[in-house]
Amino acid sequence: MSLKILFSARPGLWDAYETPLRAALDEVGIVAEVGPDLGPPEAVDYIVYAPNPDLRDFAPYTRLKAVLSLWAGVETIAGNETLIAPLTRMADPGLKEGMTEWVTGHVLYHHLNIGHALARQSGTWEPYVPPLARDRRVAVLGLGELGGAVARALANLGFEVRGWSRRPREIEGVRCVSGPDGLTEALSGAHFVVCLLPGTPMTENIVDAAALRSTATGAVLINPGRGTLINDDALIEALDTGQLGHAVLDVFRKEPLPASHRFWAHPGITVTPHVASETRPTSAARFIAENIRRSEDGADLLARVDRASGY
Amino acid sequence: MSLKILFSARPGLWDAYETPLRAALDEVGIVAEVGPDLGPPEAVDYIVYAPNPDLRDFAPYTRLKAVLSLWAGVETIAGNETLIAPLTRMADPGLKEGMTEWVTGHVLYHHLNIGHALARQSGTWEPYVPPLARDRRVAVLGLGELGGAVARALANLGFEVRGWSRRPREIEGVRCVSGPDGLTEALSGAHFVVCLLPGTPMTENIVDAAALRSTATGAVLINPGRGTLINDDALIEALDTGQLGHAVLDVFRKEPLPASHRFWAHPGITVTPHVASETRPTSAARFIAENIRRSEDGADLLARVDRASGY
Repeated sequence: MSLKILFSARPGLWDAYETPLRAALDEVGIVAEVGPDLGPPEAVDYIVYAPNPDLRDFAPYTRLKAVLSLWAGVETIAGNETLIAPLTRMADPGLKEGMTEWVTGHVLYHHLNIGHALARQSGTWEPYVPPLARDRRVAVLGLGELGGAVARALANLGFEVRGWSRRPREIEGVRCVSGPDGLTEALSGAHFVVCLLPGTPMTENIVDAAALRSTATGAVLINPGRGTLINDDALIEALDTGQLGHAVLDVFRKEPLPASHRFWAHPGITVTPHVASETRPTSAARFIAENIRRSEDGADLLARVDRASGY
Repeated sequence: MSLKILFSARPGLWDAYETPLRAALDEVGIVAEVGPDLGPPEAVDYIVYAPNPDLRDFAPYTRLKAVLSLWAGVETIAGNETLIAPLTRMADPGLKEGMTEWVTGHVLYHHLNIGHALARQSGTWEPYVPPLARDRRVAVLGLGELGGAVARALANLGFEVRGWSRRPREIEGVRCVSGPDGLTEALSGAHFVVCLLPGTPMTENIVDAAALRSTATGAVLINPGRGTLINDDALIEALDTGQLGHAVLDVFRKEPLPASHRFWAHPGITVTPHVASETRPTSAARFIAENIRRSEDGADLLARVDRASGY
């Protein structure tokens, strides 16, 4: 019997996903009608979902077996009380790889002071030798799929990595801490702080003035997680006093970041336009198809959201 | 009995090495008189060596047990026929780590197009999502201590790495090739070319016009190895036609690179002042001390130079 899989996202995204999603479903042997318009809600089996203001009420989808988010962050939907069916986050390997590459690249850019070299192209031979990674401490806040992968990659490169998460975790080569005291310990003396926590009420403004006082002087803050994790005023103040040396921000409370926003003009801030964890359609479609196959086979879903904690 | 260890290098280097070298010898239990002036050559047991125009004739050092180079590259001394004692290269872990960090940082800078992001800080939200590392090919020329470590690190990050060396090698996760045909295979379709070959007559100008035609269009050349590896005219031509997208050069035929040299002004070239493989005195001193201990115990020396091949 053919399934009905609704693709619910902002206009335009379907164009990017139609071919890879059909191919991925085909690969795992799922026969389905799939697209953005499938007729009556009560006939829909699955919803492939990206934040979409037009879909707020899931109650009419009476036979819904699961909602499969195209995004790793699910805060726009996790608290929706009309949604009873299981919800899964995006956790395709491409997402993890892209995030790891983006964070590692920006950490090394500042670690090696590449900007200094780029500004010295007028014939001045002035060797600057940075300390080794093993003499630099990195705090990774959030040790889920993305944070865990980033922490491992930076530890592999030799950095002294401390990871913090709400619930205790274990990652080889990484000193993992949890709870409120653990946060101060993770940040203490850190030369780099990487924010990869989910956006929940508990994590809002977790990087505040007190947190920023714990790092090494001149630390570099890297936020590819959620804009809400950071207290914006505390960030600007820490940059202006020199407590922070630089901030690389990929996510914001409002996106696109308005052209008039003070972050753009601040010399201590690099803005990137939410590209660190961009989902690549080919690998994301494979992940979605695999989860639908699992659901049909009665197997556990990958990256299922714990609705109580919101991620 | 106390050994005599001559420190032979350009003036100034002894200041950086005296404390770490004495400490490292002490750690391995070697009692020695060590310094830049030790009296008659025939009493010297070991020479710690960095390129030094004042020491050309090793014949008077009749009881010499080994020469321990502070540099990874030994081409200024390997062919010296007055030197009969064993010669070792510098191969301390700090050197390998520093090189790996430097190459990885510069590869990721271009892979992620960080320069593009840095130039877009005036309020323009224009997402640019690079391909994943797994969709980019890197050719590492030279698979010794440094090249091998770099190849492994880039493969760990997901890049498709091909390594080339004169003698066949095996590195997990890296497709290793050797010989003249292997060179074309390694370079074929490469988006990044990392040069870490030793400077020998065989490797001079190995990156020539033909080699540069094999890479992917717009490839990035990264040379932290030796200035002689690259044909300078072929490099400039490949950059000017767009066959190469960029070159990051850390080593040159003449150093410091003269302020008037065309490399400084070329928009497609980033010059760094020979910092990629800077030896850090603390870890280098430990390596030297360990080799002296091995020699005294009759054990095999680490990183002993094969005088016939010159590295």
